[in-house]
Amino acid sequence: MKDVRIGLIGTGYIGRAHAIAYAQAPTVFPLKGNLVKAMLAEVSPELAAKRAQEFGFQRSTGDWHELVADPDIDVVDICAPNFLHKTMAMAAIQHGKHVYSEKPLALNARDAREMVDAAQRAGVKTLVGFNYMKNPTSQLAKEIIASGEIGEVVHFYGTHNEDYLADPNKPADWHCFKETAGLGALDDLAAHIVNMAQYLVGDIASVCGDLQTVITQRPTAPGSSEVVLVENEDQAHAMVRFVSGARGVIETSRIACGRKMGLTYVVTGTKGTLSFTQERMAELKLYRHDEPEHRQGFKTLLTGPQHPDYAAFCASAGHGIGFNDQKTVEVRDLIDGIAADVPMWPDFEEGWKVSRVLDAIVQSHETARWVNVDEVG
Amino acid sequence: MKDVRIGLIGTGYIGRAHAIAYAQAPTVFPLKGNLVKAMLAEVSPELAAKRAQEFGFQRSTGDWHELVADPDIDVVDICAPNFLHKTMAMAAIQHGKHVYSEKPLALNARDAREMVDAAQRAGVKTLVGFNYMKNPTSQLAKEIIASGEIGEVVHFYGTHNEDYLADPNKPADWHCFKETAGLGALDDLAAHIVNMAQYLVGDIASVCGDLQTVITQRPTAPGSSEVVLVENEDQAHAMVRFVSGARGVIETSRIACGRKMGLTYVVTGTKGTLSFTQERMAELKLYRHDEPEHRQGFKTLLTGPQHPDYAAFCASAGHGIGFNDQKTVEVRDLIDGIAADVPMWPDFEEGWKVSRVLDAIVQSHETARWVNVDEVG
Amino acid sequence: MKDVRIGLIGTGYIGRAHAIAYAQAPTVFPLKGNLVKAMLAEVSPELAAKRAQEFGFQRSTGDWHELVADPDIDVVDICAPNFLHKTMAMAAIQHGKHVYSEKPLALNARDAREMVDAAQRAGVKTLVGFNYMKNPTSQLAKEIIASGEIGEVVHFYGTHNEDYLADPNKPADWHCFKETAGLGALDDLAAHIVNMAQYLVGDIASVCGDLQTVITQRPTAPGSSEVVLVENEDQAHAMVRFVSGARGVIETSRIACGRKMGLTYVVTGTKGTLSFTQERMAELKLYRHDEPEHRQGFKTLLTGPQHPDYAAFCASAGHGIGFNDQKTVEVRDLIDGIAADVPMWPDFEEGWKVSRVLDAIVQSHETARWVNVDEVG
Amino acid sequence: MKDVRIGLIGTGYIGRAHAIAYAQAPTVFPLKGNLVKAMLAEVSPELAAKRAQEFGFQRSTGDWHELVADPDIDVVDICAPNFLHKTMAMAAIQHGKHVYSEKPLALNARDAREMVDAAQRAGVKTLVGFNYMKNPTSQLAKEIIASGEIGEVVHFYGTHNEDYLADPNKPADWHCFKETAGLGALDDLAAHIVNMAQYLVGDIASVCGDLQTVITQRPTAPGSSEVVLVENEDQAHAMVRFVSGARGVIETSRIACGRKMGLTYVVTGTKGTLSFTQERMAELKLYRHDEPEHRQGFKTLLTGPQHPDYAAFCASAGHGIGFNDQKTVEVRDLIDGIAADVPMWPDFEEGWKVSRVLDAIVQSHETARWVNVDEVG
Repeated sequence: MKDVRIGLIGTGYIGRAHAIAYAQAPTVFPLKGNLVKAMLAEVSPELAAKRAQEFGFQRSTGDWHELVADPDIDVVDICAPNFLHKTMAMAAIQHGKHVYSEKPLALNARDAREMVDAAQRAGVKTLVGFNYMKNPTSQLAKEIIASGEIGEVVHFYGTHNEDYLADPNKPADWHCFKETAGLGALDDLAAHIVNMAQYLVGDIASVCGDLQTVITQRPTAPGSSEVVLVENEDQAHAMVRFVSGARGVIETSRIACGRKMGLTYVVTGTKGTLSFTQERMAELKLYRHDEPEHRQGFKTLLTGPQHPDYAAFCASAGHGIGFNDQKTVEVRDLIDGIAADVPMWPDFEEGWKVSRVLDAIVQSHETARWVNVDEVG
Repeated sequence: MKDVRIGLIGTGYIGRAHAIAYAQAPTVFPLKGNLVKAMLAEVSPELAAKRAQEFGFQRSTGDWHELVADPDIDVVDICAPNFLHKTMAMAAIQHGKHVYSEKPLALNARDAREMVDAAQRAGVKTLVGFNYMKNPTSQLAKEIIASGEIGEVVHFYGTHNEDYLADPNKPADWHCFKETAGLGALDDLAAHIVNMAQYLVGDIASVCGDLQTVITQRPTAPGSSEVVLVENEDQAHAMVRFVSGARGVIETSRIACGRKMGLTYVVTGTKGTLSFTQERMAELKLYRHDEPEHRQGFKTLLTGPQHPDYAAFCASAGHGIGFNDQKTVEVRDLIDGIAADVPMWPDFEEGWKVSRVLDAIVQSHETARWVNVDEVG
Repeated sequence: MKDVRIGLIGTGYIGRAHAIAYAQAPTVFPLKGNLVKAMLAEVSPELAAKRAQEFGFQRSTGDWHELVADPDIDVVDICAPNFLHKTMAMAAIQHGKHVYSEKPLALNARDAREMVDAAQRAGVKTLVGFNYMKNPTSQLAKEIIASGEIGEVVHFYGTHNEDYLADPNKPADWHCFKETAGLGALDDLAAHIVNMAQYLVGDIASVCGDLQTVITQRPTAPGSSEVVLVENEDQAHAMVRFVSGARGVIETSRIACGRKMGLTYVVTGTKGTLSFTQERMAELKLYRHDEPEHRQGFKTLLTGPQHPDYAAFCASAGHGIGFNDQKTVEVRDLIDGIAADVPMWPDFEEGWKVSRVLDAIVQSHETARWVNVDEVG
Repeated sequence: MKDVRIGLIGTGYIGRAHAIAYAQAPTVFPLKGNLVKAMLAEVSPELAAKRAQEFGFQRSTGDWHELVADPDIDVVDICAPNFLHKTMAMAAIQHGKHVYSEKPLALNARDAREMVDAAQRAGVKTLVGFNYMKNPTSQLAKEIIASGEIGEVVHFYGTHNEDYLADPNKPADWHCFKETAGLGALDDLAAHIVNMAQYLVGDIASVCGDLQTVITQRPTAPGSSEVVLVENEDQAHAMVRFVSGARGVIETSRIACGRKMGLTYVVTGTKGTLSFTQERMAELKLYRHDEPEHRQGFKTLLTGPQHPDYAAFCASAGHGIGFNDQKTVEVRDLIDGIAADVPMWPDFEEGWKVSRVLDAIVQSHETARWVNVDEVG
């Protein structure tokens, strides 16, 4: 079996999730390639070495440039902060590496487009870490929609709300500044729900959005009386129109008190409706309007081995899947895609499409009008 | 105790709910006036007489003009189809009657404004049947918001979705035509959630909306192959900005498969969040961000005698309140308002404000831009 | 139409619910008799007169003996404390009145049996206020079970838990003493769930129970340091075997922190399962095992006009029914039963059967063995 | 760091879960020992070799006797069918190995006791795979109870219900026979909830139970008309009394239509209540009776990094944990326990205690009386 040698950059919040997925995947799935945890880069050689040992990587480096140039690496996996995604990906592509990047692909759609073009020219494969669509439950939602069980989709309501910046006394960090984060809740959270919308209902054609920075300044450090201006939005929402003709609304917030993992969607079709919240990530609610009127109702499907990709984790329904499991599905797609030389999705093109929707929402807000996503980037 | 003599026009779906409320109210509440079921009008003398007997009204008539002119009537209660509200109310006002009208107050904001002005000139009291805000649970929501428990409101998400026209084979009825219904889901359903939004968060200042008629034609009769064009929207949504600075989204649909009573709201504040769905009308979910992090979560409050207007129905929490109970609270407000000569709310002015928001959503849709509600009507 | 003249004794918690039901019923339902609120008895003439006026009764008395003997009364409605049920009912029967009594029918099965026999001898009709089984949602459960949709019932789990005595500092009241209340949680609460079990699954044949008084003494008054012994159980549970062969468990508690209206049941059949909680009294969860494995799940039915007795309250599903509505259904059964001279249920015989099950649970606890309910009373 | 060399026997349903946990654990947790996947045994050398490769084990064998005798194995991990647990464990102990066994520890309490004694004499460490108590959410429940937040526990209601044998046409397999499975639902499922009860509330002192085989015969093969008798119970329930004085009920079923992972509990204390269902394994509902009456309610805690063992999987609350994650916690306990030479729990003694409770339930059923668990085994 062909080796797929991974070079991982970054071991923070999401880098750690990647590491867990790399650990799990070969046992969970019959992978088509031999996953090799080849090299790991961090901001210092010491930290890199420490993490390499923890995560079972063979080699490590304090300089990511070394990693992207290493001849014994097949895939560069980018888990560094948002503003570094483009630089790292372009360097990796230049060295002919396949690239597996965390979302958002770039700080804006134009940058994302450059990355798509570079990857295409270089003939490398790409994958973006929109892991929530890999959740077996959301795959089931896709399957149900594709089968026509709920008819034609006429409406999509989706959110990705969390509350990690709800406390106004929480100091500003890199998420709050344009140079380091790009957008606020839109890039950090809404990227996921825009991708999910497109996965389930197809591409978004136009948007009309509204953004707001509610907590306009924050302390520079815990308890400090010195404050700094917050540069990007705390909350945003947009009306959207899909290419298919479906309409909808997307909302996002990083100050939505009480929402810890508020990725949710309601997909309404002409014959039925699906409802989902990631906080109950193994449940999908399905309503069928063609049932007899006295027996209509939302049915709670507990994801199980009859549904996509669940059986690999457990042979019994309702036993539960976790956050890292969806990342493990993503890693399966990565290894299989590269080993078997088949397309992967969501690729950089989808990453760019998501960025384009987000940028269009911002433009719409600034110009107080509807914006076609084609106008952007 | 002063008599409050009711003249009820119309005994369909909502007229019947009024009748049940009139039956219940004097036993449930210590009313400040003596509720007299004086007279009832229907489309024929026979039907009027039949309903008067069923509902315990003293007299009946097949001609509503007679009712509004009757000297022994204090309040005209209008439960006729939407397009008659204005005509009947203007006639009642002309005869110096107080008016209790079902929503929507009129087919458009300009008509509603005329009604407000006429009532003010005549010095009569008015009340509009936005009964969902009379639900003790939503009164509790208001109380919690007013007390500052969830801080300043920063976001409102509200829906009123149902599925009574989800079936494309369902024939067109009066709801589908502009002349009889005015707007579609907006007038029929969204009027409630706009009123609720204004009740909980204050007046809406501007809107940006999108409307869609999904099922563009319907049979003229069950099973008929003859079809007729549907003239108003099946679904609509709008971004809204409140006078207070809060932002939000409002959605409505009459083809939302599976939603039988989908009036819902999530009110997010700087310190907490409230979440409610009318399908579980006796539950309010409250989240407080100032609780210790390891004990944060949404708490399900079951409405009980410690909450507004519940004790009148039952002395124990969690025992449940029903649809007609909120109408009974409304009738209590009516009788007390008139008997004790105190202001009632939501009055015609609020009815006009709601119509104005709905009209602004339509204008916004037609002009593809934000519309200040002040621009309307 | 024949008059059905009601004589109501007692206007506390449950008497008030009766009054509301009397007020509502003639408007909600097309009754077969003419409901006359004839007379009301309370502990003093003054209170009786006051309540009569509030509840719309024609006459009143401070002496219930007068009421039961009154020739212009057809039905005696007993809403006095438990220990008076038997005395009042026997007196009413002696005067040839039909009797509508609140639960528990008596303080023990022997007394209940005497009441059954007396009523049979006198040829009067009887009805016991087990109102929760009148809830349209539980009627729907019955309908589903009877239709065979969930196959043969193999298991019943039911509770009636509340927390009104959870606070150990709450003073002892009449509920805590054998002479006034009889049993504790069993009589006060479990009577309902035993009736529901028998309604849904058929008669209980044998039981094996366990009782416990957790808070063994309570203050005599709020804040008092003087205490008194609690004489009956705070919590109890029992294994039960039905005549049908089904097995099950019944639990009750008056100190179940957090349960405000914890009447719940799960009925498991060979082909499906029903699940219900009274705190969401308009929802029934239905699971069908014969659905395809990948679409199995509990479906939430919102009670609506297609279900028993709901349409009388509202023409739309999911709009909600309240505590007093189920009492209104009960009053409909009362008036129709008497006016049309048809059997009513649950009658005194069912009241006795419930008492017999409760007494058998106590005997089982005292003798630490299974007890056939036939052995009792 | 000390090596902990694992010898895994069996790679079916639960053996696979162990393998996934072994794969994940070193990345998820900073283990105190070096986890070595040393050897794997299956029923044939071919299957063993195949699985060893899939699961990353160094060596393999078609004969488990070889594995337990291998000098380079520290821990024998028994994932074979129930009836082999004792034989394998005794052999492993004889060779001085630590033993990590799946539940139930043995087919009866007497056998389990022999295993406890053998392990003690040999001075080896033991661990039983009651993985549900390793779920961070149930650890949180334990923490809350131990802290006194809900006062003294007065009642425990627990279930482990599933529906894998609900279909009467499903052929009999090894679960249905005494020789291979021992008990039915009790051993297969209730073992978990009995362990959970003892984890949360302390040891059970006495029980009174009822068992039933509902589907008394089953086909020998799919579609076959030949049938065989089912030898053990489909459903069972028992009243229990804890050493602490708390009372409760435990239920189990393998024919509970609709329950896919029905391990649930409600723990009622004098000051509050906890409620949990494994189908929503990352949610715990907490009620505090000492909150102001108008703000009382069950609060939904989403397990997060502030709670035990969650942070190792994800740094954000509400993002979810899965079935294999609780097994990974168990493996952490195993490796740390052996490497650091500290006690592990639940050990064989707890395994024996659980078996004793299950046997006592059977004895109670057979003798129709309460049974002290001390009387057993």
